[in-house]
Amino acid sequence: MKYLFILFLFMFSIQLTAQSDAENLKKIYSNSLTNGKSYEWLSHLSNQIGSRLSGSFGAERAVEYTKEELEKLGLDKVWLQPVMVPKWVRGLPEFAYIETLPGKTTQVNICALGGSVETPNGGVRAQVIEVQGIEELKALPKDKVKGKIVFFNLPMQADLINTFEAYGGCADQRYSGAYEAGKLGAVGVIVRSLNLRLDDFPHTGSMTYGDLPVSQRIPSAAISTNHAELLSTMVALDPSTNFFFKQNCKQLADVESYNVIGEITGSEFPDEYIVVGGHLDSWDLGDGSHDDGAGVVQSMDVLRLLKESGIQPKRSIRVVLFMNEENGLRGGNKYAEVAKTKGENHIFALESDSGGFTPRGFSFDCSDAVFNKVLGWKDLFKPYLIHYFEKGGSGADIGPLKSDTTVLAGLRPDSQRYFDYHHAANDTFDAVNKRELELGAATMASLVYLFDTYGIKAEMANDTFKN
Amino acid sequence: MKYLFILFLFMFSIQLTAQSDAENLKKIYSNSLTNGKSYEWLSHLSNQIGSRLSGSFGAERAVEYTKEELEKLGLDKVWLQPVMVPKWVRGLPEFAYIETLPGKTTQVNICALGGSVETPNGGVRAQVIEVQGIEELKALPKDKVKGKIVFFNLPMQADLINTFEAYGGCADQRYSGAYEAGKLGAVGVIVRSLNLRLDDFPHTGSMTYGDLPVSQRIPSAAISTNHAELLSTMVALDPSTNFFFKQNCKQLADVESYNVIGEITGSEFPDEYIVVGGHLDSWDLGDGSHDDGAGVVQSMDVLRLLKESGIQPKRSIRVVLFMNEENGLRGGNKYAEVAKTKGENHIFALESDSGGFTPRGFSFDCSDAVFNKVLGWKDLFKPYLIHYFEKGGSGADIGPLKSDTTVLAGLRPDSQRYFDYHHAANDTFDAVNKRELELGAATMASLVYLFDTYGIKAEMANDTFKN
Repeated sequence: MKYLFILFLFMFSIQLTAQSDAENLKKIYSNSLTNGKSYEWLSHLSNQIGSRLSGSFGAERAVEYTKEELEKLGLDKVWLQPVMVPKWVRGLPEFAYIETLPGKTTQVNICALGGSVETPNGGVRAQVIEVQGIEELKALPKDKVKGKIVFFNLPMQADLINTFEAYGGCADQRYSGAYEAGKLGAVGVIVRSLNLRLDDFPHTGSMTYGDLPVSQRIPSAAISTNHAELLSTMVALDPSTNFFFKQNCKQLADVESYNVIGEITGSEFPDEYIVVGGHLDSWDLGDGSHDDGAGVVQSMDVLRLLKESGIQPKRSIRVVLFMNEENGLRGGNKYAEVAKTKGENHIFALESDSGGFTPRGFSFDCSDAVFNKVLGWKDLFKPYLIHYFEKGGSGADIGPLKSDTTVLAGLRPDSQRYFDYHHAANDTFDAVNKRELELGAATMASLVYLFDTYGIKAEMANDTFKN
Repeated sequence: MKYLFILFLFMFSIQLTAQSDAENLKKIYSNSLTNGKSYEWLSHLSNQIGSRLSGSFGAERAVEYTKEELEKLGLDKVWLQPVMVPKWVRGLPEFAYIETLPGKTTQVNICALGGSVETPNGGVRAQVIEVQGIEELKALPKDKVKGKIVFFNLPMQADLINTFEAYGGCADQRYSGAYEAGKLGAVGVIVRSLNLRLDDFPHTGSMTYGDLPVSQRIPSAAISTNHAELLSTMVALDPSTNFFFKQNCKQLADVESYNVIGEITGSEFPDEYIVVGGHLDSWDLGDGSHDDGAGVVQSMDVLRLLKESGIQPKRSIRVVLFMNEENGLRGGNKYAEVAKTKGENHIFALESDSGGFTPRGFSFDCSDAVFNKVLGWKDLFKPYLIHYFEKGGSGADIGPLKSDTTVLAGLRPDSQRYFDYHHAANDTFDAVNKRELELGAATMASLVYLFDTYGIKAEMANDTFKN
């Protein structure tokens, strides 16, 4: 009888806990949807500040603005973490055309890839050789490539449901295209924009010259998908078709910038840290509303939502707005370096850097034991149609925190529209839906709440990390 | 040993079936995403034809166009099913203002509700009484309402995750507002648009006068959410604030129109029918891309996707493009009436009428036994991130087919953005994403394929229908 009573008490307490978790999640979601701040912050970041490429005036203003807004939230600490970042500038607008017929040209939409060198003053004019990706280029004899403009035209694979997988399948032509083509003596690189739609926007993004000597570093630009189709047709009709482009971009000296950090200090375990973040920098073409304005304001709102919902975290919760994810990852590396130097024990880090679309769930970079624990929370998310809990990657900025004792996770929003806007001039505020953004913030806050409430110590002792 | 061998054969055949189901779904999804027709059809329907209110020239052209396109698919039969439909016309653009100060007016955005009477020639000008929904109005004494314009301003509840639930919570003020206010002697009704966003678009929709005598039928219009906020503020500042509106809409005599039907006749059970459909009519303000151009083209593509994927249906699969869902449901009623007269055995009907957004799953109006069978198919949809399988409503057009032997289902896309566009001038082609639309078509085709392959006879004998 006594044991039965204890059993009853035990079950009752489980019941209470589950009930209070469900109630706290409900508070968080309701608060975000009726009283969220993420959309208002995003409006300022996008419409008042605009693009925020590392080292730009926009990036500087974004650091000031987000620091001020975090200070208004009554957190325990708000500070700037200095970090040196690369400064690349686009310069004058790019100009390009296809010589469709002798004496006749058709202007096309291109944009320099981030990190590219400029063209010579008179631009680059050469015959085009089209390849479907890096491997096809590597298989060509050097004399077929020398003196030409290499046109990488491998499209994203449309029948993959996760569009990030389609991106992963051809992003190397953008990142390493100029490196590989430069080695073979090409004079320029044009890359099909990493966009699943056919439209007129060129999509920029990072690229590398690796260890190439300066003499082999050739200018590299992205072309809109519509114009990639046009160029491909023209080259098929006449393989001697010439292409011309001119761009004025430059890599300048590194400048000082900052990660912006805010903290609610834990009431029970202040030395256990939970990080939630996105990256404050963006490319320069749109205003970076989806990439990654959304992740920034959602992460800021996680701390506000916890406070507003009357949740006093046991562990220290930090929002980190990382600088320079797009072209250097200096902010992410700096944060991890400082954390390591100080011996800070980060138990969990969550990043939102996949757009402000309806959240579907998370991917986790953690041990099986931790993952099984997380799966036990899945039902709590069912009322909010959050169903995706899988092992996988997390986020670029939190990647450097990876260790045997830190769980990493990435928010996974619906991915269908992301590459319509990614790194292009149409990544603007109007492309973000308020409710979708707010649901993402609430979903992140809910997971942070659960990691804070239950910790992960026991699971970490049970298992080693695998991914 | 012999039994073991039979068991082996049996398990092997189960394995084969499951494998071939998975393969067929993969074919359907790949086909839709790489070679789908839905987006091209929607472009024509939206951009070339435009709005398709019952009885309008647009509706007539849409009937012709979709019949022609179905005929090109090489189906076994394509035909028009005549049905008489109401014809309501908006007439000249509406005009409205708030008398904000003596002698000063502020123009506001309104649109007549579908089915409303016009205002007198000189418009309606009266003091405003604001209520939060029908119940609040009913509680008022008649002399508080008589001679006034009733302003229904109950907003959609923002913290409901399913926005259709939020819609359901206040749609009665639009549908029955004029009926209830007319009974109390009001002279006009202004309803807050059923929109979760604050913006400038008024959202129309159906309304009723019920059994009210003509003398009590008062004009009724929707006001944009931004202007509903403004009106509410003005009335709070000064309860004697006057409002003026003029509209020129009219209900004309019924006209003949059509449901458009195409059929692949079943190879084994031609007398068992499966229906997939959406409604061809739309409201007159936008071009009805989400409501319900999306459902129309997805339903058309279901039959094409089955054919293209090399699937020969055992049962007869019909696409039905229903006329007049928005203001009469005459098409849905007619189809069910004819089916009943002919004694056609409809085993399954699926409707898409919730927008062309990323599909999340289905809701089913069926017995527990059938629902359990359907749940057995859920894993097949996991690669496509289709996770929502719940009992619930289906669709207005297929509702009249409800019987003990017909399973009804509705496609459930992500609902967050739907009411941004619903029945408003911004429900246009650019608001639809190609991949999201195509994923919906594939998801519908996959469910139709499974119902066709496995039927539902045994389950129907086991259980009676509950909802």
